[in-house]
Amino acid sequence: MRNSNRQWILRKRPTGDIQPGDLELVDSPIPDPGPNQFLARTIYLSLDPTNRIWMSDIEQYMPPVGLGEVMRGGTLSVVVRSNNPAYEPGDIVSGIAGWQEYAVMDFAQKLPKTGVPLPAYMSVLGMTGATAYFGLLDIGQPKSGETVVVSAAAGAVGSIVGQIAKIKGCRVVGIAGSDEKCKHVVKDFGFDACINYKTEDVAKALKRECPNGIDVDFENVGGTIFEAVLDNINMKARIALCGMISGYNSEGQMSGPANFSMLLMKRARVEGFIIIDYFPRMGEFMADMAGWVASGKVKYDTTIVKGMENALSALNMLFTGGNTGKLLIQASEEP
Amino acid sequence: MRNSNRQWILRKRPTGDIQPGDLELVDSPIPDPGPNQFLARTIYLSLDPTNRIWMSDIEQYMPPVGLGEVMRGGTLSVVVRSNNPAYEPGDIVSGIAGWQEYAVMDFAQKLPKTGVPLPAYMSVLGMTGATAYFGLLDIGQPKSGETVVVSAAAGAVGSIVGQIAKIKGCRVVGIAGSDEKCKHVVKDFGFDACINYKTEDVAKALKRECPNGIDVDFENVGGTIFEAVLDNINMKARIALCGMISGYNSEGQMSGPANFSMLLMKRARVEGFIIIDYFPRMGEFMADMAGWVASGKVKYDTTIVKGMENALSALNMLFTGGNTGKLLIQASEEP
Repeated sequence: MRNSNRQWILRKRPTGDIQPGDLELVDSPIPDPGPNQFLARTIYLSLDPTNRIWMSDIEQYMPPVGLGEVMRGGTLSVVVRSNNPAYEPGDIVSGIAGWQEYAVMDFAQKLPKTGVPLPAYMSVLGMTGATAYFGLLDIGQPKSGETVVVSAAAGAVGSIVGQIAKIKGCRVVGIAGSDEKCKHVVKDFGFDACINYKTEDVAKALKRECPNGIDVDFENVGGTIFEAVLDNINMKARIALCGMISGYNSEGQMSGPANFSMLLMKRARVEGFIIIDYFPRMGEFMADMAGWVASGKVKYDTTIVKGMENALSALNMLFTGGNTGKLLIQASEEP
Repeated sequence: MRNSNRQWILRKRPTGDIQPGDLELVDSPIPDPGPNQFLARTIYLSLDPTNRIWMSDIEQYMPPVGLGEVMRGGTLSVVVRSNNPAYEPGDIVSGIAGWQEYAVMDFAQKLPKTGVPLPAYMSVLGMTGATAYFGLLDIGQPKSGETVVVSAAAGAVGSIVGQIAKIKGCRVVGIAGSDEKCKHVVKDFGFDACINYKTEDVAKALKRECPNGIDVDFENVGGTIFEAVLDNINMKARIALCGMISGYNSEGQMSGPANFSMLLMKRARVEGFIIIDYFPRMGEFMADMAGWVASGKVKYDTTIVKGMENALSALNMLFTGGNTGKLLIQASEEP
């Protein structure tokens, strides 16, 4: 064990795209756990669009990361030393240890020992899958035969949303940023169609692929893609507002759609949600999703980048479309 | 009975503010009812913000009024001649006879003979009251102790929304366009507070008047007033989107709020609604509202302008804030 803990520290709040120097990689000593604490070594770090929100001092659902603090991030770790009888060395735990190779923690969720590959707990069986599950089913409320549109369809959440919607008997149309991604979501994830927003007029393509209109939109992107969706919604459409990644790197606030009045004309609903609100209901999700994954009804992708030092450049892949599925940093080997 | 029927014809679709010449007042012969039809003389014509939407060729909840057609409008009329056994001369009916002094109709709602003044059926006991009732209770779902904000608080719908919210045990804060209107809604309609958006910083005033944040917003206005509301919403806030009058005279589409991302951060919901969807449930509304009006728990205002020839200039009062409560044209005397 090296006595070095590489950590990413937030030095400046990015304006627009993240710039080198906004976060700094520093080398610290590995900390000692205090009474009732344990030391955990990070195996996987989750990279998510919402990380960018946490860097900004805007109104949000958690306090922003403080300047001079370790960047916040979801992690899967192995306990290496423990002063807490509930955690033993070798335990695999998921939590929010942040962008660092080691962390002293008071609490984390112990994972059951199953045959499931560990990255699944960072994606389809973790927050990512739960976001897809509750956002689609609880907020979107799709009914069999309805049409569901999913933006960022090849992404970690979007790809799972589409598969759940198929299980529920819906027509599913994805929107993604390349022909390869589109082919991937149709062929491997069973979407009925997928629109490449970089080469097609999205509003026109939606009219073609959604001949009965759009009943549910799972919105990950915002901006002009969202406007194209709104132009094609049905009466009483439900929009599950999960994210607006197209706006996260813009300065200032994330504007609403120019055709906002469609909500009035179509008596439609937009509802924002954040997965942390659903923690008390995670059992429902795990029961369904574990079965779907085991039976092969829900598949998932991961893009794994090795080395904590690559966290920042990897994060940018989310904004440039460089990854498919769940994006993870592997900071150390699995035990 | 004059053999003349003054009608307002839509000649041009307004761009921005309505211009003289967009609608033309013409004199036509009084038409004859055909088989199973009846002739009705307009007593009251309802003027509503949504009239402006009907003039535009934008996506909306009904077809726009055609060029060369009589302008659409809700009416309360008296039957003068009938070839339909269901309607007798002297019957008072509400319907959509349009901006004209006489109309041949196939169907209209017969009003019961009660002691209630006829204008009440055009306001608190008609579509206006039902819009307030279902929008607040069905979409806004206020709970006792919550804070409800109402824009256009001195308007026909807003003033009723606030009174229902008080009945439901809420703190009610209005937003209106003059000190007189504000005084009126507090003193006469029992709002807890009212903000004059022309003289106050609305966001700051909302912070002061809603110390516990905003749980429900009944949105009539849109634009910067709506943005100020969004800046102050609580977690899981509900926004009943009834109208966006601030945008109806703008060219093109009605933009969404610049701080749309508040919906995500606060897991809030915006839902548009149109009263015509609630026609099957009008019984619920009438049962409650008739009781509230009879017991004095809900009061209402009307601004009555005489003469069909004044319909267009009167309509503009809605956009300049010239009226309080329900705005009606009285086209002929009550029988």
